[in-house]
Amino acid sequence: MEIPQNECIVLAARPSGLPEAACWRLECRDVPPVIPGQVLVEVDTISIDPAMRAWMDEFCYLGCVELNQPMWAFGIGRVVDSASPDFEPGDTVRGLLGVQRYSLIAGDELETLEISDEPHSWHLGIFGMPGLTGYFGMTDLVQPRPGQQVLVSTAAGAVGSVVAQLAKRAGARVVGIAGGTDKNRFCLDELGLDACVDYKAANYEQNLAAALPDGVDIYFDNVGVPTLDMALRLMNECGTVIACGAINQFQHMDRVEGPTEYLKIPERKLSFLGFTCFHYLERFHEGVTALRALVERGELVFKEDIAIGLANFPEHFLKQFTGQNQGKLILKP
Amino acid sequence: MEIPQNECIVLAARPSGLPEAACWRLECRDVPPVIPGQVLVEVDTISIDPAMRAWMDEFCYLGCVELNQPMWAFGIGRVVDSASPDFEPGDTVRGLLGVQRYSLIAGDELETLEISDEPHSWHLGIFGMPGLTGYFGMTDLVQPRPGQQVLVSTAAGAVGSVVAQLAKRAGARVVGIAGGTDKNRFCLDELGLDACVDYKAANYEQNLAAALPDGVDIYFDNVGVPTLDMALRLMNECGTVIACGAINQFQHMDRVEGPTEYLKIPERKLSFLGFTCFHYLERFHEGVTALRALVERGELVFKEDIAIGLANFPEHFLKQFTGQNQGKLILKP
Repeated sequence: MEIPQNECIVLAARPSGLPEAACWRLECRDVPPVIPGQVLVEVDTISIDPAMRAWMDEFCYLGCVELNQPMWAFGIGRVVDSASPDFEPGDTVRGLLGVQRYSLIAGDELETLEISDEPHSWHLGIFGMPGLTGYFGMTDLVQPRPGQQVLVSTAAGAVGSVVAQLAKRAGARVVGIAGGTDKNRFCLDELGLDACVDYKAANYEQNLAAALPDGVDIYFDNVGVPTLDMALRLMNECGTVIACGAINQFQHMDRVEGPTEYLKIPERKLSFLGFTCFHYLERFHEGVTALRALVERGELVFKEDIAIGLANFPEHFLKQFTGQNQGKLILKP
Repeated sequence: MEIPQNECIVLAARPSGLPEAACWRLECRDVPPVIPGQVLVEVDTISIDPAMRAWMDEFCYLGCVELNQPMWAFGIGRVVDSASPDFEPGDTVRGLLGVQRYSLIAGDELETLEISDEPHSWHLGIFGMPGLTGYFGMTDLVQPRPGQQVLVSTAAGAVGSVVAQLAKRAGARVVGIAGGTDKNRFCLDELGLDACVDYKAANYEQNLAAALPDGVDIYFDNVGVPTLDMALRLMNECGTVIACGAINQFQHMDRVEGPTEYLKIPERKLSFLGFTCFHYLERFHEGVTALRALVERGELVFKEDIAIGLANFPEHFLKQFTGQNQGKLILKP
């Protein structure tokens, strides 16, 4: 078969702080021949996630990308050539396909996706890492109860919006944190949260405390310090803090800020529980089934922010660090 | 009845860093008359604990002591006068009696102690806060299992030595951290730990890693950063970190250092659980009974470091911050 050249976004320079456009270079490269065990995938949908920022540094959070190599990203595509017994041309697969048009990847790093007629992008969002992170966080790590006060950072985001909605369904009072009027409106009007606090507004911490007169029983942290410290100050005795990452910290993994309020953990008998959705790999099917049922009944709202063309990757990627994304960030190459 | 003047140690100045002798003043004060609800106690045994350092600052960890007021401390004494229906002269009581000879205190802040023929000091150590902290930490918050790797900071100390011995009894491999040759010898020879690492020796972190070739499943933290960060780097997937305080941090509660390695918590699905023994107030009797059985069978080793005379308080208190104490610090006024 005839394969055109691969177009890919390579990491041209490591960032300091915000990952500006100068970090990236769009390149054309030959696709090497498929060797035994490998699969060639034509990528059709690329996921843009906060953890990718950490992969750009030399300091590793589940590894790091080498300079002048294609940027890592989760994605979905169609098998076009296979030297693995597990895959055939035409299969729809998901894996760390990278920010590129073609991905040559070991078969054992891929999974076959069973897709109904929903868009592929849903399997990178609501049925993918972010949705599953929210699902296992709110069903396995902690189970919110009616009357509890649940606080969720990045409440308009891909993970936070699922966390917040599942906590609401469980009967808790849910307060979100989001940046800007539009996202705050989305949280209140579309997700149905009880309150939402704008972290970009003046008096952020006072507003947070005012929205939580009965303190916090469960805090779901996606951002890290300083919000993590503010939440620790508001935690009720025997409360639970859950962390699956920290977008504020991914920008400087060489000098992560630890929560200086962590002594609230012994003082108030808190549990600080961490996880990533990869700790639940063997339960993904259960998670997707549960989320699909909610989506089909119209009981789970989610938004996507889709860009088209690899050349738009740098700008689209940057949105999540300035809070300008309007939903789960997706790139079509 | 005739009460002599009260001798007490007052907080003369707030410390910066080490709590030097200049922070304290020995004073004589009149004992005011007992008003309804109050009890007058003649103190016979005073507990010296790390958390007292935090109480010296204006930044509160369970409150703070006012300048020129008697220093807080847990202690045991004998009721000499009572205007509370719950106490009679001659009762042996425990409470926040302060670093002084006589304590005038509300009856509802006291508990009656049932003492056999053991020394009162045991009820401030092995049967008191430190022993109970170790007991509930290792039986309620986490239950070590055979084959697990347990790491304990301040392993020669009042809390750590109980934690380490209970983990050994549960069948775990236990590695201690202690300062200096004597304490390391004590941990190996008398507590029976599998290994002990000297935090004052060169190459501390390398030695720690070398003592834990299979990583750490349970880490009991009494110290905070930097040891907490070192332990986080060594934690195994799904491990548990327990914290009940942090002696390194109690010296500067206005600028506590947070653990910069806290993102290991999500990365490795760790649980970071906090508590103080006061969260188990209603289970103290159970804890003391269990600890007493072990002590009576000679299966729980503990050491006390007792000084006599209020004038020796400043020097005795300082020992726990320089690591010079040889067991639970006790002062007889």
